[in-house]
Amino acid sequence: MRPKMVLFGDSITEESFNNSGWGACLTHQFARVLDIQLRGYSGYNTRWALKVLKKVFPREEKEAPVAITVFFGANDAALPDRTSAYQHVPLDEYKHNLHSIVSFFKERWPSTLVILITPPPIDEAGRLENPFVEDTFGLPERTNKAAGAYAKACVSVAEEYKIPVINLWNRMQKFPNWEKLMLRDGLHLTCAGNKLVFDDLIMTLRKEGLSLDTLPLDLPALSEIDPNDPLKSFEM
Amino acid sequence: MRPKMVLFGDSITEESFNNSGWGACLTHQFARVLDIQLRGYSGYNTRWALKVLKKVFPREEKEAPVAITVFFGANDAALPDRTSAYQHVPLDEYKHNLHSIVSFFKERWPSTLVILITPPPIDEAGRLENPFVEDTFGLPERTNKAAGAYAKACVSVAEEYKIPVINLWNRMQKFPNWEKLMLRDGLHLTCAGNKLVFDDLIMTLRKEGLSLDTLPLDLPALSEIDPNDPLKSFEM
Repeated sequence: MRPKMVLFGDSITEESFNNSGWGACLTHQFARVLDIQLRGYSGYNTRWALKVLKKVFPREEKEAPVAITVFFGANDAALPDRTSAYQHVPLDEYKHNLHSIVSFFKERWPSTLVILITPPPIDEAGRLENPFVEDTFGLPERTNKAAGAYAKACVSVAEEYKIPVINLWNRMQKFPNWEKLMLRDGLHLTCAGNKLVFDDLIMTLRKEGLSLDTLPLDLPALSEIDPNDPLKSFEM
Repeated sequence: MRPKMVLFGDSITEESFNNSGWGACLTHQFARVLDIQLRGYSGYNTRWALKVLKKVFPREEKEAPVAITVFFGANDAALPDRTSAYQHVPLDEYKHNLHSIVSFFKERWPSTLVILITPPPIDEAGRLENPFVEDTFGLPERTNKAAGAYAKACVSVAEEYKIPVINLWNRMQKFPNWEKLMLRDGLHLTCAGNKLVFDDLIMTLRKEGLSLDTLPLDLPALSEIDPNDPLKSFEM
């Protein structure tokens, strides 16, 4: 049976198969070797994620995925006194929840590579131009500073567990004009933003021994099939 | 556990997650309700597909998919006296093989919706400009006429089994400039070609009762969550 990788997160995961997003690119990259399973839940924070963990990953699914991305924080970091307050999770609780999520996976599937991804930076002007709910005071519901604190907490959880982390908050801000280059509405990813997540994931997976060089093909590639005796390749 | 749909076919299936292809679009459309499983094998014809059927669909995978697309014929229809001769499968055998594939699924999973997709039309000029292997006589390895015969055979298998079929060969040629509009190298799909397959699949699935209106969400959508008491949605 083909091994699988699960993408678990919020809307940035849920929409990762739209417009050549990072989920679609991963599936294409590993088209012959890995199943990519989408478990993205728009709007969810780690508090809600914890509540649904056993339903999203039921005991009956026995096979350990080779890898899982855990990509939450953008909603937790919504400010507690603005229009997305109901999605807000305090920083300490976020960290604790992320711990619990990682530990759930580590207990269930000790061999599975868990990869944390921090929330992206926030382009506050972009949020004001594309509000999910209009704020009558003209204030964005998320700030880059808050997102940064959650990103830092996410990195620290990864360090404690000695698991890989993609510090998207940090990475994206290294690019000139990251606000518009990486983010389409101040929060969700553009093509360039998706490509960055994809590239960083491919690099992270490769470092951990998961790449097209190491993952076995289940069936012969066309290039391996002898044109003079094609059926020989299928004597199995 | 979330139901799944399997995409079984040749390169047009294998590359369906590239550049917003039809596989990626399906996954995006059904992001919260269906797993889309990619089983595309570049270059494969129905003869090779039959050889690997039990390996691609091992007995241990007990759950019946809600739907499977079977999308072969483009390689079977490669001409027997040109550069892709080793992929050629005679028309009668193609029809017989397709029968065997459908009957394998119907026996294994009687409730599964099997959807046949015919090979696309061939833009012979496009093939000559983008040959897989250069032909020294300057002849394309596939012709539109041959593809049409295989498409017709595919439709007749669908009729015998009373299962839905997308007659891509027919559908695409109804568009002006289909040669360049639908096909990027005379054979594989452009954005518009991918969109046509996606749209036709969505329509076919809907007719058979599989749509966002009927497939249940496994977890609450953000719009269903009460901002004043979010956790209430997760009391399950």
